Amino acid sequence: MEEFKVKDLKLASDGLKEIEWAENHMPVLVKIREEFLEKKPLKGIRISASLHITKETGVLVKTLKAGGADIVLVPSNPLSTQDSVAAALVREGIRVYGWRGMSREEYYWAIAQAINHKPHITLDDGADIASSIHKLYYNVSSEDVYLVQKNLHVKINEVVDTLIGGTEETTTGVIRLKALERKKQLRYPIIAVNNSLTKYLFDNRYGTGQSTLDAIIRATNILIAGKTVVVAGYGWCGRGIAWRARGLGANVIVTEVNPIRALEALYDGFRVMKTADAAPLGDVFITATGNKDVIRKEHFLKMKNGALLANAGHFNVEISLPDLEHLSIRKRRIKPFIDEYTLRNGKKIYLLAEGRLVNLVAGEGHPSEVMDMSFSNQALAVKYLVENKGKLERKVYQLPYEIDEYIAKLKLASLGVEIDELTEEQRRYLSQWAEGT
Amino acid sequence: MEEFKVKDLKLASDGLKEIEWAENHMPVLVKIREEFLEKKPLKGIRISASLHITKETGVLVKTLKAGGADIVLVPSNPLSTQDSVAAALVREGIRVYGWRGMSREEYYWAIAQAINHKPHITLDDGADIASSIHKLYYNVSSEDVYLVQKNLHVKINEVVDTLIGGTEETTTGVIRLKALERKKQLRYPIIAVNNSLTKYLFDNRYGTGQSTLDAIIRATNILIAGKTVVVAGYGWCGRGIAWRARGLGANVIVTEVNPIRALEALYDGFRVMKTADAAPLGDVFITATGNKDVIRKEHFLKMKNGALLANAGHFNVEISLPDLEHLSIRKRRIKPFIDEYTLRNGKKIYLLAEGRLVNLVAGEGHPSEVMDMSFSNQALAVKYLVENKGKLERKVYQLPYEIDEYIAKLKLASLGVEIDELTEEQRRYLSQWAEGT
Amino acid sequence: MEEFKVKDLKLASDGLKEIEWAENHMPVLVKIREEFLEKKPLKGIRISASLHITKETGVLVKTLKAGGADIVLVPSNPLSTQDSVAAALVREGIRVYGWRGMSREEYYWAIAQAINHKPHITLDDGADIASSIHKLYYNVSSEDVYLVQKNLHVKINEVVDTLIGGTEETTTGVIRLKALERKKQLRYPIIAVNNSLTKYLFDNRYGTGQSTLDAIIRATNILIAGKTVVVAGYGWCGRGIAWRARGLGANVIVTEVNPIRALEALYDGFRVMKTADAAPLGDVFITATGNKDVIRKEHFLKMKNGALLANAGHFNVEISLPDLEHLSIRKRRIKPFIDEYTLRNGKKIYLLAEGRLVNLVAGEGHPSEVMDMSFSNQALAVKYLVENKGKLERKVYQLPYEIDEYIAKLKLASLGVEIDELTEEQRRYLSQWAEGT
Amino acid sequence: MEEFKVKDLKLASDGLKEIEWAENHMPVLVKIREEFLEKKPLKGIRISASLHITKETGVLVKTLKAGGADIVLVPSNPLSTQDSVAAALVREGIRVYGWRGMSREEYYWAIAQAINHKPHITLDDGADIASSIHKLYYNVSSEDVYLVQKNLHVKINEVVDTLIGGTEETTTGVIRLKALERKKQLRYPIIAVNNSLTKYLFDNRYGTGQSTLDAIIRATNILIAGKTVVVAGYGWCGRGIAWRARGLGANVIVTEVNPIRALEALYDGFRVMKTADAAPLGDVFITATGNKDVIRKEHFLKMKNGALLANAGHFNVEISLPDLEHLSIRKRRIKPFIDEYTLRNGKKIYLLAEGRLVNLVAGEGHPSEVMDMSFSNQALAVKYLVENKGKLERKVYQLPYEIDEYIAKLKLASLGVEIDELTEEQRRYLSQWAEGT
Repeated sequence: MEEFKVKDLKLASDGLKEIEWAENHMPVLVKIREEFLEKKPLKGIRISASLHITKETGVLVKTLKAGGADIVLVPSNPLSTQDSVAAALVREGIRVYGWRGMSREEYYWAIAQAINHKPHITLDDGADIASSIHKLYYNVSSEDVYLVQKNLHVKINEVVDTLIGGTEETTTGVIRLKALERKKQLRYPIIAVNNSLTKYLFDNRYGTGQSTLDAIIRATNILIAGKTVVVAGYGWCGRGIAWRARGLGANVIVTEVNPIRALEALYDGFRVMKTADAAPLGDVFITATGNKDVIRKEHFLKMKNGALLANAGHFNVEISLPDLEHLSIRKRRIKPFIDEYTLRNGKKIYLLAEGRLVNLVAGEGHPSEVMDMSFSNQALAVKYLVENKGKLERKVYQLPYEIDEYIAKLKLASLGVEIDELTEEQRRYLSQWAEGT
Repeated sequence: MEEFKVKDLKLASDGLKEIEWAENHMPVLVKIREEFLEKKPLKGIRISASLHITKETGVLVKTLKAGGADIVLVPSNPLSTQDSVAAALVREGIRVYGWRGMSREEYYWAIAQAINHKPHITLDDGADIASSIHKLYYNVSSEDVYLVQKNLHVKINEVVDTLIGGTEETTTGVIRLKALERKKQLRYPIIAVNNSLTKYLFDNRYGTGQSTLDAIIRATNILIAGKTVVVAGYGWCGRGIAWRARGLGANVIVTEVNPIRALEALYDGFRVMKTADAAPLGDVFITATGNKDVIRKEHFLKMKNGALLANAGHFNVEISLPDLEHLSIRKRRIKPFIDEYTLRNGKKIYLLAEGRLVNLVAGEGHPSEVMDMSFSNQALAVKYLVENKGKLERKVYQLPYEIDEYIAKLKLASLGVEIDELTEEQRRYLSQWAEGT
Repeated sequence: MEEFKVKDLKLASDGLKEIEWAENHMPVLVKIREEFLEKKPLKGIRISASLHITKETGVLVKTLKAGGADIVLVPSNPLSTQDSVAAALVREGIRVYGWRGMSREEYYWAIAQAINHKPHITLDDGADIASSIHKLYYNVSSEDVYLVQKNLHVKINEVVDTLIGGTEETTTGVIRLKALERKKQLRYPIIAVNNSLTKYLFDNRYGTGQSTLDAIIRATNILIAGKTVVVAGYGWCGRGIAWRARGLGANVIVTEVNPIRALEALYDGFRVMKTADAAPLGDVFITATGNKDVIRKEHFLKMKNGALLANAGHFNVEISLPDLEHLSIRKRRIKPFIDEYTLRNGKKIYLLAEGRLVNLVAGEGHPSEVMDMSFSNQALAVKYLVENKGKLERKVYQLPYEIDEYIAKLKLASLGVEIDELTEEQRRYLSQWAEGT
Repeated sequence: MEEFKVKDLKLASDGLKEIEWAENHMPVLVKIREEFLEKKPLKGIRISASLHITKETGVLVKTLKAGGADIVLVPSNPLSTQDSVAAALVREGIRVYGWRGMSREEYYWAIAQAINHKPHITLDDGADIASSIHKLYYNVSSEDVYLVQKNLHVKINEVVDTLIGGTEETTTGVIRLKALERKKQLRYPIIAVNNSLTKYLFDNRYGTGQSTLDAIIRATNILIAGKTVVVAGYGWCGRGIAWRARGLGANVIVTEVNPIRALEALYDGFRVMKTADAAPLGDVFITATGNKDVIRKEHFLKMKNGALLANAGHFNVEISLPDLEHLSIRKRRIKPFIDEYTLRNGKKIYLLAEGRLVNLVAGEGHPSEVMDMSFSNQALAVKYLVENKGKLERKVYQLPYEIDEYIAKLKLASLGVEIDELTEEQRRYLSQWAEGT
């Protein structure tokens, strides 16, 4: 078995500069690294991580390594790897198996390497390692599990027995792991890093918001001002996208299945309607729902000539590619991340990034500043799992509020922002019930 | 004992028109009223309500009455009663004890009337009835409890025994009742209406946001554009205020004690700093924290000449009036809701609405559209308490999510907004864990 | 002939406080007053002013009086007078003829008094004095000129001969006077104060923007968030309104006749369409066009039940009252500034402020901060006319840019804002053509 | 002399796709091309154009060629050429002399080719052809004129005699040409395309606004939210940048030398201060002034460690590179468009795109949608110059309003937006002066 597999080790020096640039914008994680370096809280811990291999992930795995961990890193999406960073991390002593543009076979081969590592801790962005382990354990038959299985060198029971815990970065992944927990099939405790306030309030909202619009502009160079942008989903990602689209001058329509969120979107000044009603109005459609087939046949058929489609949700199932293929008589690549579909009705629809996470495929993913907090949660979650080994149940946990607040405080300090503290008297006032009018 | 006490019954016809106008903008509550009228779910139930006596409250108590309840209504703030509405409600058969500009003595006399009613259910906006009952029960000695006690015609133990439950409308009230619950002193179950999503996401944010700025403009007619507005607190009320101030052209500074909220404010584009640092920069200061002494001596001393102070929190303790009085050599009323304080340092500071809830004192309170949802929660909370009589513990509850969602659906329908529904396939997808990449 | 005519002189002390409050927010005009007081540039000059009699106008006429002028002040709208201010100004020695709620006869009687004063300078807000003088001079027959004529004690030729010049405050007035100029019928030079940058960029945009929304909220207490607001006209006033409505959470539709402005609105993120298409979508309609019949029969018929109509343009002709009356089977007053029209089709439409300038009728007009600049232009325009007596042609002029810039500099200084100055080298660079790449 | 000189003709097929993509978003210019193709208004006209060689410029020159013109195209910036587009245009029969990354010598060699073409019409973006012609004509000695001269094959007097007119695209270029006009040295009529409403209101505001932020994000991947962004200049470009930065969550400070614009920025909710005061506060600095040394030694010295500098003005003189070089002890390239300067005080400052137009160097320039209008003005300006040959003076002209409006109408139509038209009665109302109150 190879010690690593990346595109080209010669890219390492570029990758190191990229990681250095990210470190400049990730002061909290750098501070945690200093502590890890000193105290080695992860000594002897094997970690397998499936994450987008970006410069920010580079800062995270360097931090985990500083803590003493032995790490295998594989991608969480076949198209999102920055090859220079992958090369640089190999130079830093991380066992990386990943490159941009992996085939389906290669992708699951890499997941298999992550499992072969017999990790104590898994880190996931979309739950691919954790899902694979559970599918193998429960003998779920599917193509992807078959692709993993045939590259496996370890017994899955031993893998499961070795595991202390895992972390999950995304809403989508948490939904899957919660489903496992509900069915009482979860085999090891998971920290839903996504559910930390310092993660989802920032990464999902400001990170996805900016990077999604950024990626669309990079791919198309269209003017957002004056466009009608339809955002599917008004969760934290969706509202980030909606606000940024508005901030760039778009007229935004929101679609939702949740009536309370729909009302919020309405009172935030957006139009809210069914996707079927929005279909003929939109110039750009962006999905961020965590669900599948959000835009499908009936919607494609109503769209304007020239409509653009992009997905900001984790999996490439939100825009129904099968429906789109089925409706089309012609498909061609216009520019690196734009595919033109010519429908039977003569209209042309443009799909970005093959319906995959547009911000990672056509852009650089989230800015370092938000990943600083998300990955600080990851690093501290790993430490928390190690410290609480044996004490946690097979459930999906949230990190304690104190850790969340600790990260926020470090972030504010790094920005030079000072805030008020409660006086003794104020603390007392908040704790009593009899003082008043 | 009088059957009611209001300013002037001749104002009733104006009040009825006001209530009619509110009903036009409260379709959800009107719909609930129709159901109540038919099914009489509150038959035989005595309700004592301490609420701001506004046209919207008029629509609520008419709804409760339609459900069969026997109601006493008293204010929740001595300055917030609309006398025409109070008169109209007497005409509608509600026993109202309240008028604009009550003295402290009169205010607690009215609270006593609410308790004398031996309610099955209490409705509170700031927990004044519930607090008084608990203070009486636990023999807490304070001036306000003394003022209630001397007008009491019933035994407090009997009152407590009669109670089925209560509701609370505000963040401030919920904080107080939670404190009681933590000390295991809560005597009857409470529905924290404030904690319903269809309440705090809308009322606290859009309602307080607009009505606070509106009230400040009504009182002062200042131009918000170009002003530096300091908002203390970035909770749901605070962020509503901050966004509306920005929407009117202000440059907004946020102060906070919670580091996560502080970071949110920062990433929302606001400046964040200590109150002491904001003091010399602000043209207008607005508090919305639920805490006391948020703006105090050390801050007043640093302010610019001409600074305006307004409070949007429940109690008039957020801006320290004792400190302000103490620092001043002169005080005069400039316009109906503006008091000019001349400090020893020669600077003039202007306090709006005596530091009380500015939107209710200098404005008309929240627009009907948001009260529609808040008060639908109130009405359905009362029904829920009656239906679950004996089943609830002495705790602070949130209304079930289904009721929350039901209100949102009615609201969307009333606005003619249609949203997507999950397909069978989508529902399945969300519930499973093994489908993916 | 009476020396003055106002509602009630006893209101003067309230009016003085109002004027004092305005002065606190009009530092530029106060500074100009100090200079006027010292140099008396208007000594011996008779001024007749037709302006909204508000606290800000109070500061202006006090300033002109400080400069030595002898002033008659009449309203520029029968519903906009603040009676306390009118009383206070009489106490200050101004000859005021005006009160809130004048009849048509009374209004033109007051205009006649302004002409009887044989002014050297006229000040107009909507050109009523100037129009009347021209109609009298050219024997135009109309009802309003008849109403003026019968109260006239002077010969119109003598009036015209005495005139040095006039000023005009509004877009609407400037359009009328430009029409006179084009026909070569203008009898005396006019300074279009409206065309000063420090006037229309601020007063029309930020002033009208805020005060229009403020007045609508005062009259109705509706929640703006979530409403569809249709703004007719995307001139400086219209865009101020559109941005403020958006800032309060509305979804805004703009209607325009000018294609370039329509495109600007579109790229600013608003929907743009024909009024006929917007009619069934709007919850609130606001006109700011300077034209007539902007909303008319064909539009009323398509509106939703409950639609609100308000006008922010100078004259009450933008919303066609004749059409509305004609289509209705019932009309009643709901609240002080709201008339409910029940159309034959059963729908109810609500007209605010009788279709007159909503911000002056249902609100307090523009905030002092913007009137500070507008009225500084007025004061300096009067001084400029006197200084250039005999040198100006019978044309519509703009104030020299230097005066405009002078006002802006004083304003910035009053706000404590410092800005960069060009270095010698930068000044040189800007003036040459040969330096570059 | 070569017929063309570009990077690599094999890039032509990519370039053709790029141009096709642009054409999809430039419906107005495509429509004008159809007319040109039919009527050949430029038959026999030689055009020399110095423009950024982008896909949008491709659409323009193809349009001019369709009209019958014989065209030489050279860059207007040594770093902004898209080599694939240059290659494609050669294939289309345009004589292109330009590639990305030209040296100073090569750049002026290309300008010389433009002059050697003996154009009837010059098209400029920054006035490089026009300046060179005037410098040669007036024997101005400078390095750049020397570099042109030595490649010249024609007599400058003959060139000048041949010229019918020219056009200029930018504010910066217009400033230079106006300076020539003021000195009565302008040798041929110029249409200031920049001054068309359909150009500067859209291109400078929405185009520069989006593309500048886009380019900064592409180069750095920083999160804009939470950053303090200092924008130098609040002209049309500057305000576009300021609004977009805010729309992405930044806290924006504006610096200005013009007091009226400074006040506008203030009332738009931005902080306004001297550059020296903003220097220690900014995370990102963006210049858009048309002036030189806007950020210089005294400012660099006060900046925070990590400050980013970008220029959106035409020339690379707005940020003083000499000062920056002088203050630094070290300089290294971090990423393609980022140079790190380490100052003597130990702080690191990051300069983007070598201080050149960041949106063209690190991004793709303005989106096609706005260039559609800007270049429609160019195309119609060329036609106008030809039609009015001999009738225009040696002055800087603006295109007639009718042409401006015509472009706006075509644009609205292409977007499917319909607007109101004035009724006969409304037209009459606007033209008269006697109707009113």
